[in-house]
Amino acid sequence: MALFTPEEALAYHGKGRKGKVEVVPTKPCLTQKHLSMAYTPGVALACKAIEKDPALAYDYTTKGNLVAVVSNGTAVLGLGNIGPAAGKPVMEGKGVLFKVFADVDVFDINLDCKDPDKLIEIVKAMEPTFGGINLEDIKAPECFHIEETLKREMGIPVFHDDQHGTAIISGAGLLNALEISGKKAGDIVVVVSGAGAGAIACTKFYEALGVKRSNIHMFDSRGHLHKGRSDLNEHKMAYAQDKALPSLAEAMKGADCFLGLSVGGMVKPEMVAAMAKNPIIFACANPDPEIPYPDAKAARPDVIMATGRSDFPNQINNVLGFPFIFRGALDVRASTINEEMKVAAAQALAALAKEPVPDYVKKAYGVSEMEFGIDYIIPKPLDLRVIEWESPAVAKAAMDSGVAAKTLDLDAYKVELRERLAASRARMESFIASYGLDI
Amino acid sequence: MALFTPEEALAYHGKGRKGKVEVVPTKPCLTQKHLSMAYTPGVALACKAIEKDPALAYDYTTKGNLVAVVSNGTAVLGLGNIGPAAGKPVMEGKGVLFKVFADVDVFDINLDCKDPDKLIEIVKAMEPTFGGINLEDIKAPECFHIEETLKREMGIPVFHDDQHGTAIISGAGLLNALEISGKKAGDIVVVVSGAGAGAIACTKFYEALGVKRSNIHMFDSRGHLHKGRSDLNEHKMAYAQDKALPSLAEAMKGADCFLGLSVGGMVKPEMVAAMAKNPIIFACANPDPEIPYPDAKAARPDVIMATGRSDFPNQINNVLGFPFIFRGALDVRASTINEEMKVAAAQALAALAKEPVPDYVKKAYGVSEMEFGIDYIIPKPLDLRVIEWESPAVAKAAMDSGVAAKTLDLDAYKVELRERLAASRARMESFIASYGLDI
Repeated sequence: MALFTPEEALAYHGKGRKGKVEVVPTKPCLTQKHLSMAYTPGVALACKAIEKDPALAYDYTTKGNLVAVVSNGTAVLGLGNIGPAAGKPVMEGKGVLFKVFADVDVFDINLDCKDPDKLIEIVKAMEPTFGGINLEDIKAPECFHIEETLKREMGIPVFHDDQHGTAIISGAGLLNALEISGKKAGDIVVVVSGAGAGAIACTKFYEALGVKRSNIHMFDSRGHLHKGRSDLNEHKMAYAQDKALPSLAEAMKGADCFLGLSVGGMVKPEMVAAMAKNPIIFACANPDPEIPYPDAKAARPDVIMATGRSDFPNQINNVLGFPFIFRGALDVRASTINEEMKVAAAQALAALAKEPVPDYVKKAYGVSEMEFGIDYIIPKPLDLRVIEWESPAVAKAAMDSGVAAKTLDLDAYKVELRERLAASRARMESFIASYGLDI
Repeated sequence: MALFTPEEALAYHGKGRKGKVEVVPTKPCLTQKHLSMAYTPGVALACKAIEKDPALAYDYTTKGNLVAVVSNGTAVLGLGNIGPAAGKPVMEGKGVLFKVFADVDVFDINLDCKDPDKLIEIVKAMEPTFGGINLEDIKAPECFHIEETLKREMGIPVFHDDQHGTAIISGAGLLNALEISGKKAGDIVVVVSGAGAGAIACTKFYEALGVKRSNIHMFDSRGHLHKGRSDLNEHKMAYAQDKALPSLAEAMKGADCFLGLSVGGMVKPEMVAAMAKNPIIFACANPDPEIPYPDAKAARPDVIMATGRSDFPNQINNVLGFPFIFRGALDVRASTINEEMKVAAAQALAALAKEPVPDYVKKAYGVSEMEFGIDYIIPKPLDLRVIEWESPAVAKAAMDSGVAAKTLDLDAYKVELRERLAASRARMESFIASYGLDI
């Protein structure tokens, strides 16, 4: 059951002020005195200070809280290559999520540029403006080269959410699913359906969590990835096994985990039935998962299942990751978002899921029960504790791994985050209310 | 007398939230329902609509009200080539002015890119994101090639404010100065000190207002521009005269208008004394004009003088132009800002200066008298009528010259603008107040 009608969704974008964000001054600016500080001549003092000490850009400009959501529209949601103009609503929406969940300011930058090297050049040139870069909806395999190059050549965090977001959130789920089933990451067999950017990033991340590459069987639309194939790019070839498997169904026999980032409905109940005890199914195809939740549950009541959908348990929702990861990275002025920070984010989410859930969260999702177990392995986005758990964990990992330019007292930081988010939401709410929109 | 102390100007940038702007959602977004429309799955409806009909980007995204203030920091204010990071406070400030005066949203894009052709490529790629491009603080002569190319190759307005802003505002002053002195544009002799981007653009614009090129004497740091010189680029050569003049002082003898975009203090009282009746002095060097206002006034009580300073009469302040010009251009979806629109802007400003001034404007500037005459030839930025005079004039010129994709009823538009600005300022004021800053 959809939460909204198509008319409501279009009205949400088109009613009142067009689009979804507005750029608002944060300092008084309606008098001559204030304007003469906001712009010339007063602004020159801030310019000169930064010219002398570049780090002061973090004190006198928005840079330290400003993330670019950059897309060329070549792989937007499940819609495909719809282009940068048609992708803009998604990028604005991403900005809204950054803001609502972690008070991060976003400029959405939709680029008419399919050439990966030109895109790299453009994003690199924007470094003075931003504190971080969130790449979004850029198609594979170009997205790998783009992210890798930018990470290497830029001094601010660069993060391709389509790759790492699902990896981190489902990784948190995997940690808890292993705990519930009493299995170890190093022992499990994982079958991956799909070999796009998200699938490869998830698989890499599961390796960082302890899964062995020799236990991973990946499938693309042409079948099992094995070394006998001549049609694999380097990213797929890394996961090619020595011995070919005849089918997905065959691979799933006795497997512990199925990860789907492919096509809705391709997994049948009998394939789930053939899996090992407490089968882990992460069926991320959207809007229709690789197998419907009720069908998997009927085939195997002991299934630990997560999907991309909000109307079934264990939603793998990227919004549990990017706002909080960037929040932590920005707050310690991390030069990158490294593996340690991503693992810390997944561990923090996994740990939070084991805490008792506040009543307002249950109420927001319309359920009376929500406690750690096969139907609750991942926290909920509307749980306001996520920022306090995840951002400090990411900040700590950045400090511990030596990529942070600033040190934080983590206890004080937690309190600060709670207060900051509450104040930000209150400001937003009253600002939005002033539009008096009935949507 | 400065309106603020250096400490206040730095505190203005660094106190509370760092920098000067914030990106705020405009639609309710704190519940699951609203979030599912702001982002996936609901956002897909807006994407698909735009994919089918690209013009709907103006209905479902911020594009139609969003301007990029783009700079590479090579010629920031009077500070020179301080780079894009140190230039960011200026670009954010420009965004604040766009917002405060005309409710235009701005992303400031500070680019680490000195190569003109790469900069062109970058800005072109951003077209899907923005409704207009304001180029800022890019040094001459590169700025000419950059603006010309982008104007030709982009389907949205591109405007280099350093060139055209001063041209349009001083052009408005020139129209009124001519009226007061009873002279005709086609008859006056104009001496221009400076041959940078601003000087050349002003001169070109004065030609559009009727000044004859043969009556224009331009000087760069090496002297008079004449055809015997071998060191002139094409932009300067266009203004080279057949016969060389020995000095600025010589050129100013009997001249009607002096336009300075050069160095403070270079014009002496005796040079002003030697000019024609009602000499027009536009001394725009900042913060020290080519001749101090009191000195010029003492030399020639009939002088009609304007400067870049707010503490003397007739401030030539670009903020009287760009916010309102873009407002008008965006509202009719103009594909460009052409000469007709710029002339219309200057004429509208000139006409408004002849209207009785409301008391709140006099009060804002601390004077009891403000009426059309040699000391009031240009309206004041804090005069809220400017938007109602200038933006409809620009919109009309766009429609009349065939570059508007949308037609407006100009009378209704005026009323709409007044209400829009009032509502925008009220929203801003209460938003800013919620920060509780004492600055």
